[in-house]
Amino acid sequence: MYSVEVRDRIMIAHSLPDPFFGPAQGKHGASFVVDVAFFRETLNAQNVVVDIGAALDVLAGTLKELAYRDLDTLPQFQGKLTTTEFLCRHIFDACCAAARAGALGADGANLARIRVTLHEHDLARASFEGPVA
Amino acid sequence: MYSVEVRDRIMIAHSLPDPFFGPAQGKHGASFVVDVAFFRETLNAQNVVVDIGAALDVLAGTLKELAYRDLDTLPQFQGKLTTTEFLCRHIFDACCAAARAGALGADGANLARIRVTLHEHDLARASFEGPVA
Amino acid sequence: MYSVEVRDRIMIAHSLPDPFFGPAQGKHGASFVVDVAFFRETLNAQNVVVDIGAALDVLAGTLKELAYRDLDTLPQFQGKLTTTEFLCRHIFDACCAAARAGALGADGANLARIRVTLHEHDLARASFEGPVA
Amino acid sequence: MYSVEVRDRIMIAHSLPDPFFGPAQGKHGASFVVDVAFFRETLNAQNVVVDIGAALDVLAGTLKELAYRDLDTLPQFQGKLTTTEFLCRHIFDACCAAARAGALGADGANLARIRVTLHEHDLARASFEGPVA
Amino acid sequence: MYSVEVRDRIMIAHSLPDPFFGPAQGKHGASFVVDVAFFRETLNAQNVVVDIGAALDVLAGTLKELAYRDLDTLPQFQGKLTTTEFLCRHIFDACCAAARAGALGADGANLARIRVTLHEHDLARASFEGPVA
Amino acid sequence: MYSVEVRDRIMIAHSLPDPFFGPAQGKHGASFVVDVAFFRETLNAQNVVVDIGAALDVLAGTLKELAYRDLDTLPQFQGKLTTTEFLCRHIFDACCAAARAGALGADGANLARIRVTLHEHDLARASFEGPVA
Repeated sequence: MYSVEVRDRIMIAHSLPDPFFGPAQGKHGASFVVDVAFFRETLNAQNVVVDIGAALDVLAGTLKELAYRDLDTLPQFQGKLTTTEFLCRHIFDACCAAARAGALGADGANLARIRVTLHEHDLARASFEGPVA
Repeated sequence: MYSVEVRDRIMIAHSLPDPFFGPAQGKHGASFVVDVAFFRETLNAQNVVVDIGAALDVLAGTLKELAYRDLDTLPQFQGKLTTTEFLCRHIFDACCAAARAGALGADGANLARIRVTLHEHDLARASFEGPVA
Repeated sequence: MYSVEVRDRIMIAHSLPDPFFGPAQGKHGASFVVDVAFFRETLNAQNVVVDIGAALDVLAGTLKELAYRDLDTLPQFQGKLTTTEFLCRHIFDACCAAARAGALGADGANLARIRVTLHEHDLARASFEGPVA
Repeated sequence: MYSVEVRDRIMIAHSLPDPFFGPAQGKHGASFVVDVAFFRETLNAQNVVVDIGAALDVLAGTLKELAYRDLDTLPQFQGKLTTTEFLCRHIFDACCAAARAGALGADGANLARIRVTLHEHDLARASFEGPVA
Repeated sequence: MYSVEVRDRIMIAHSLPDPFFGPAQGKHGASFVVDVAFFRETLNAQNVVVDIGAALDVLAGTLKELAYRDLDTLPQFQGKLTTTEFLCRHIFDACCAAARAGALGADGANLARIRVTLHEHDLARASFEGPVA
Repeated sequence: MYSVEVRDRIMIAHSLPDPFFGPAQGKHGASFVVDVAFFRETLNAQNVVVDIGAALDVLAGTLKELAYRDLDTLPQFQGKLTTTEFLCRHIFDACCAAARAGALGADGANLARIRVTLHEHDLARASFEGPVA
């Protein structure tokens, strides 16, 4: 299995209003370093998984709605706990949708899996990996 | 599959008394940076894999018996070659036991897999990954 | 010149309400990885700059007022632009005060300089370095 | 599953003569940081996956044909697009061949899988992982 | 002294045609991760050293002439040995010129020093630091 | 001021037999990642600070007496507390001596300063920087 993995980053504010989260119930924030890996069984005619420039563009496009935002104020997250794990899945779904919509070119249709990793800081990170439905 | 991965570290001395290990047969030591990833198919009601604070506490608890110790003097390692791979498995077993004992709360019962990675230094690392039995 | 440098981290929310900051004028946040270096011309009788455990405690104590907080709501920052550079200086001042107050033991009185570095994410960081007044 | 992963690096020049690659069609180059992970279900009698010194030697031997070379001038790459993905597979094949040839000792016969990761720089990397045929 | 440091990267080919360089005399290449730090004694009215977006733009602009190029073919480098140290100074000079030309806004006039660091790979890096003339 | 910085690593055991060190009084160990930076005001005729291969060889030679050893058993360290700071200075002195002895070629005579940094693990590091006497 081949993969190509690209990196970008966002800075967001949010709160996690459930007693489960202790001091993180209040408004705080995070810089997330975001890695997205695209997996494929075989390479295309140019010997790549996907065009790396297109992969970076897809990732940047996916993050645009989140960058420099207070997630508590965004309609799509009302009533949701925007944990790191949840955001991994949210970005995974957006990358899958972009692949299906052709944003990665014809190669997007041949992807087997995508893995999204969000690094909170040096000591903690979360990920979601699944098939490109 | 979701994961959350946390990091801690220990400094230990040991020897590897088998000719296989060449210069590492004598007493030497290591700073191990330890990453433990907890994998789960679905998130809990709070949208997390496990409470990240509990995960850090479990890891710290697991490492307490090793920190600042000469592993050659610990009863549990008599007659064992305490390689990096062996220690990955040792820490994996301790994390599984902690999960079963409830140290990760109810979510510990829903973990699919755990992966323990020990970084010896910038050029070498080992890991063990397996199902939470 | 000798130094010892320790690391900790915080997650905060804030806004930067000045047109200078473009999209960062709104409420957003950051995970800051914080490195503090203590500099000294000579070592103490135990061959260290300062006790590294005490250095980590001083750093952790300094960060406690900031961790998981919305800086816009803290009295000490009213009317201030809490940029990364500003926070470097704020933490520097707190570390100097802690050193003068004896939190680093007798060695704190012999420090020449302190440098505080805040990493916003993988692409950007700021620092303040100065003499321990 | 156990793994041990080692790191080395090469600096190479090449071109990617296909319009697909835009500005990378011209002669340019890369420093590749190369990680090779060896996977195995059980440890050997010395509690290791493979001898880490042998693993580092195999990796160094594999990279020798590439180091400080213009890949466009090497016979084995004529008519090939030497993308990062392609080079991952090339190094994977060479490591498998070395394992089969006994360069990792008897343990090389017990490897389940090998994964080769090439880091282009801080924002992008590719990998190939497969069974040791 | 305050600093803000930003990161970008380039991939280039070149040769070092002097027997001093052994195997690096032939055409090879590098991915350089480039860090540029801007130093200043006091902050501006917005509590920053320079606008970080402008700093990233200045760095990107400086690297544009080098990205994906064979440095041996560029007129400005004819007869020069384009070592990592030399390129640090070249990028330093370009950043100073950009600051003087106003690309960092009014704050560019208040910079005390600039430091350029080029990371060749994980084991080696070079830097040049000097006053903004 | 120009610099070139190279990296190597060692794994050692030692104890710190002074009540000051709490749990680190017993035998334990460390993997030290070692960075040595060589500083010089001007470049040589080949546009380098020093030959980077020679720098790596000097560093490796300096570390040979320490690698895989129990520092408590080495004659040169009897009665010394081999803290990270102390080892920085020890390696600094050895690098200066190597430079004076010609191990860096003629360029070694033109070095202004050397800085040695030892990383204990991800959270702590020490350094010593001084003029090449």
